[in-house]
Amino acid sequence: MTGALVIAGLGPGDDALITPEVAQALADATDVVGYIPYVARIPPRAGLTLHATDNRVELARATHALELAAAGHRVVVVSSGDPGVFAMASAVFEALEHAPHLSGLEIRVLPGITAMLAAAARVGAPLGHDFCTINLSDNLKPWDLLERRLRLAARADFAMAFYNPRSASRPHQFGRVLDILREECGMARPVIFARAVTTPAEQVLVTTLAEARPDMADMRTVVLLGNAATRQVGRYVYTPRRAG
Amino acid sequence: MTGALVIAGLGPGDDALITPEVAQALADATDVVGYIPYVARIPPRAGLTLHATDNRVELARATHALELAAAGHRVVVVSSGDPGVFAMASAVFEALEHAPHLSGLEIRVLPGITAMLAAAARVGAPLGHDFCTINLSDNLKPWDLLERRLRLAARADFAMAFYNPRSASRPHQFGRVLDILREECGMARPVIFARAVTTPAEQVLVTTLAEARPDMADMRTVVLLGNAATRQVGRYVYTPRRAG
Repeated sequence: MTGALVIAGLGPGDDALITPEVAQALADATDVVGYIPYVARIPPRAGLTLHATDNRVELARATHALELAAAGHRVVVVSSGDPGVFAMASAVFEALEHAPHLSGLEIRVLPGITAMLAAAARVGAPLGHDFCTINLSDNLKPWDLLERRLRLAARADFAMAFYNPRSASRPHQFGRVLDILREECGMARPVIFARAVTTPAEQVLVTTLAEARPDMADMRTVVLLGNAATRQVGRYVYTPRRAG
Repeated sequence: MTGALVIAGLGPGDDALITPEVAQALADATDVVGYIPYVARIPPRAGLTLHATDNRVELARATHALELAAAGHRVVVVSSGDPGVFAMASAVFEALEHAPHLSGLEIRVLPGITAMLAAAARVGAPLGHDFCTINLSDNLKPWDLLERRLRLAARADFAMAFYNPRSASRPHQFGRVLDILREECGMARPVIFARAVTTPAEQVLVTTLAEARPDMADMRTVVLLGNAATRQVGRYVYTPRRAG
């Protein structure tokens, strides 16, 4: 097989956050595969075929990318943020597991700036101590597992980053998440809602669990929660390096 | 105050992972401040002063950077990886809290590729589901808090990324961490030791908790641990998107 597959992170939105490594891979590609809004970020050019697909077909998209690469194409699968954080890398390796005839293919994952890091940077350093990163999409995990994980994470005093907090298909779940966090962490805990960060639609709101409402988040929002020591200094939010 | 302070992430080592945003800030700087090996990555040029300091003086370094910026310099504080993940951003805001006369200063944090994302990318997608990120340096946290946090994270079935696993000043602690993880997660759990990732000194080892030894890590290593579903496909390691 002469083709190769690259799984690349485009960062949170601003092209100034695309690494030169990813830019080079895109310049070398014959085919770009991904979810419609991410593929829309790639400028068309001669010799490049853009394959944009809908959101709910990650595994089919990954298999398609593997097959194009096996046929000799130089394929880049694009994700927003980092491809290894709730994005396409895991889907590609899952597809590979189901396609053992493609196991000789060379696959490279190129990291990107994942949304929580861009969101944290916007307000200061809320993830400056130990933290955890949780996908709130319940398409991928049962509610009881999510609730148990949230409570254990709170008792471990992790700062937290939440991806995919809320969608039209499950409008009530994020309210239950906030209720659990209020129970475990108290009302004064800092919360950051960072929507479409680094894009023209960016909106960042710093508040507390007492004031946090589910409708402050949508699917373009990353929500950050401080740990017990997280504090504000001026307009910035940071979590001290030391604990305990 | 006419100066400005930027806190920028240089990524894990390869210059191809420095974002254009950070490259521009470095091109505009009059002063670069940071730990010796990170400042050594910045090419000297006319009009740029490099301030390289030792590792154990984060707060003094941060205060110096704030004062330079307040005096009108365009200062970039450089960190390896992402400045908000166990790096300089938190130290700068801590210094700012102790220097209220500087609270009017404009501070921008520019995200970078943190080591765990580069390490995960090298082997596949081991952080493809919920995960936590823990600094094992016990300079910054008491051992009993660390042990409790590890056990709660394991019971929550997080994949895990460990920074600063081992140093000459505390050679035995990482062995105890591995013992706790074996107790909580069993012997078969995949572990990745990723040393100096994306540099010429890069070494990546994929093994299991049964085989993991403390001397596989040093201070340049990031250690990744899978969750209960993490698996190998060919030479890759990935954590499925779905759980439960």
